[in-house]
Amino acid sequence: MNMDELARQVKESSIKLAAAGAEVKNKALAQIAQSLYDRKEEIIRANREDLDRSEQENLAEPLLKRLKFDEEKIADVVDGINSLISLEDPVGKTLLSTELDDGLELYRVTCPIGVIGVIFESRPDALVQISTLCLKSGNGVLLKGGSEARETNRILAEIIIEASEKAGIPANWAALLETRSDVSDMLKMDQYIDLIIPRGSNDFVRYIMDNSKIPVMGHADGICHCYVDTDADLEMALRVVVDSKTQYVSVCNATETLLVDEGVAPEFLPELKKLLDSKNVELMGCSKTQAIIPIAPATETDWKTEYLDYKLCIKVVTGLNEAVDHINTYGSGHTDGIVTRDREKAARFMDFVDSGNVFWNCSTRFSDGFRYGFGAEVGVSTSKIHARGPVGLDGLLIYKYKLIGNGHVVEDYANRSKVFTHRNLNREFTL
Amino acid sequence: MNMDELARQVKESSIKLAAAGAEVKNKALAQIAQSLYDRKEEIIRANREDLDRSEQENLAEPLLKRLKFDEEKIADVVDGINSLISLEDPVGKTLLSTELDDGLELYRVTCPIGVIGVIFESRPDALVQISTLCLKSGNGVLLKGGSEARETNRILAEIIIEASEKAGIPANWAALLETRSDVSDMLKMDQYIDLIIPRGSNDFVRYIMDNSKIPVMGHADGICHCYVDTDADLEMALRVVVDSKTQYVSVCNATETLLVDEGVAPEFLPELKKLLDSKNVELMGCSKTQAIIPIAPATETDWKTEYLDYKLCIKVVTGLNEAVDHINTYGSGHTDGIVTRDREKAARFMDFVDSGNVFWNCSTRFSDGFRYGFGAEVGVSTSKIHARGPVGLDGLLIYKYKLIGNGHVVEDYANRSKVFTHRNLNREFTL
Repeated sequence: MNMDELARQVKESSIKLAAAGAEVKNKALAQIAQSLYDRKEEIIRANREDLDRSEQENLAEPLLKRLKFDEEKIADVVDGINSLISLEDPVGKTLLSTELDDGLELYRVTCPIGVIGVIFESRPDALVQISTLCLKSGNGVLLKGGSEARETNRILAEIIIEASEKAGIPANWAALLETRSDVSDMLKMDQYIDLIIPRGSNDFVRYIMDNSKIPVMGHADGICHCYVDTDADLEMALRVVVDSKTQYVSVCNATETLLVDEGVAPEFLPELKKLLDSKNVELMGCSKTQAIIPIAPATETDWKTEYLDYKLCIKVVTGLNEAVDHINTYGSGHTDGIVTRDREKAARFMDFVDSGNVFWNCSTRFSDGFRYGFGAEVGVSTSKIHARGPVGLDGLLIYKYKLIGNGHVVEDYANRSKVFTHRNLNREFTL
Repeated sequence: MNMDELARQVKESSIKLAAAGAEVKNKALAQIAQSLYDRKEEIIRANREDLDRSEQENLAEPLLKRLKFDEEKIADVVDGINSLISLEDPVGKTLLSTELDDGLELYRVTCPIGVIGVIFESRPDALVQISTLCLKSGNGVLLKGGSEARETNRILAEIIIEASEKAGIPANWAALLETRSDVSDMLKMDQYIDLIIPRGSNDFVRYIMDNSKIPVMGHADGICHCYVDTDADLEMALRVVVDSKTQYVSVCNATETLLVDEGVAPEFLPELKKLLDSKNVELMGCSKTQAIIPIAPATETDWKTEYLDYKLCIKVVTGLNEAVDHINTYGSGHTDGIVTRDREKAARFMDFVDSGNVFWNCSTRFSDGFRYGFGAEVGVSTSKIHARGPVGLDGLLIYKYKLIGNGHVVEDYANRSKVFTHRNLNREFTL
């Protein structure tokens, strides 16, 4: 079957899936989890085939690492599915209820977006994670993985589709697109796909964002900053900066640039250097920083780079305004924090820094859907519309307005024989 | 100054505007309203110049009509501004508050999107409406009007910018882009513009949507449907269909296609024809319709056409499923209604029709921000993300996460010396 026909079927099926109840969706999720366990030998065998072939083809080491899908990874995705089952059904929630007039009631009710296009590089776990998130939120899903993981993707998609349909989910709600053609074909399917979620390297995500007319949810870079204000508790600042940089370096919410107020830089930087030296963090700094601690110079490129490594750029600034300007110029709108004892400065920082997550006196590493208590994370978005920051299940939802009347017509209001009441009903939608 | 530099300034200013309080924004709105009144002679003179020139250049009649900006139109936009002032400030509302752990508090707080690009054809009132909506919601705005309205646009933009800056709004929050270049230049400014709102004809809006990588909020077509079910109260159905079609034909929420269940078509259609004949509505129908009432045939093109005129297409269907399929195939996701006494069928219709507004027993003409009680309407969106249906001020907002700690670091949770509490705080954000 060709790609276009597959996509059309998923779109059609997504209409039915949107109306599926919580029970059948949770039953399907449980069935998928069970099936992943039952067929783990098959999965691991398929993955072994992908790994062998990719090794022969000299796939880069980080991609090989992400491609691996072993017993532990299977247990992880099954854990994820189980926690998804325990979450409340996000579909059908009433967001607004207004009486427009006697017997004319308006409800804004959550519903799935429609069809999500998922594009991923290596990482077969992304296939399982995102398709189960789509199922829970009632969205159809078109999956496009890289050829390096084709055997693993094939068996995982087969398991998910078989198990969910067996549990009563409408056929064709999900499909794996397997063609030799470039991912660019999928980016053109705007008649079928409502939202694209890419999972892969920064370059991969940026390529998707730059080449799609379909909305993309995600982030390319995570260039996060810590600003140590002149009124900071320096003990606290050391703890927060070290955690922000080193707790786990290869993730988007790790800090890449430190900004230090010139008032505390001479006292703070030597102490920080000792701690970071002990963790083998390479430091680059502006000339003012270099006048305090002996480190390499930071270039214009450094301020724009997400290292995802044991590297930190340091800039000494004249105060809050310069820190905010630097962040809004070089940052990626992901996560930026201030350490200060001054409540008013913290408020200004959080108002003026144009990022999805603005933190006061804590590590940038907290910016994450699970730490935020969402129960599930669809991804982190640096977009300015729809969903921003760590995105939970509600990022896969939109709403529709349901208006219930009893023969009401607009002419009665136009000729003023009736007037709108616009009274808040504070009521859940039910029929 | 070149376009790029202007846009950069608006972006920079939008950061400050985002933090502006309700009081200064409302004061600026009042000042704009006052200034529009005070300088109405100037405005009308500038508009006269545009009208004269456009008449000489043989601008099409509907565009000329929309271009006109007289005393009445000025009074309308001033009314709009006054109602905007009375609305609650949409910025800074707490959408979620969670204690992550003792002393570590997460808040999701509404904030402006950033910079809105407004592109409009004729209609100088759109310039005033959307820029004041942007001001109320704290967004910077880049305005691009057609050359046919250049004198009117210039004076209106001058008034808005002068009056708002005099009231204390940061300079450069708004700018009128005046270049001979095509609108396509603006569509490429994705480093400065976060969202585009187009105002103009369907073709104009479709052009913008098809040629921008920046998200676009709006709708091209409004192909709305009424479905008269076999269990409809036919008296009610007549009233609802006549209002949906004829109450005001040239708007997006007017019905373009009527679907009638074959069970009631023989009784319903002749009665409907009498009423619509008296209002000079031209009817086109499928062959089953033509077997009941003598009207012209409807072609495949008719089902896909938004007439915005006294024209109605009619199709006789075998039941709810065919009606839903027709709507999901030919509709534009705008507004579709069912007339029935059967609650269960109404529920199914509202679940399965994939439109922003799904109605039961009332006119499609209700689908409008003011009728919905939003107090202001930014536009109607047929998008599947961010905002759908009639969009009020909240369509111009997004949120940021504010996390407040006391030196909290992630390592403590990773090594399990601390655990997250994830307790709902039910509290407004304040510092």
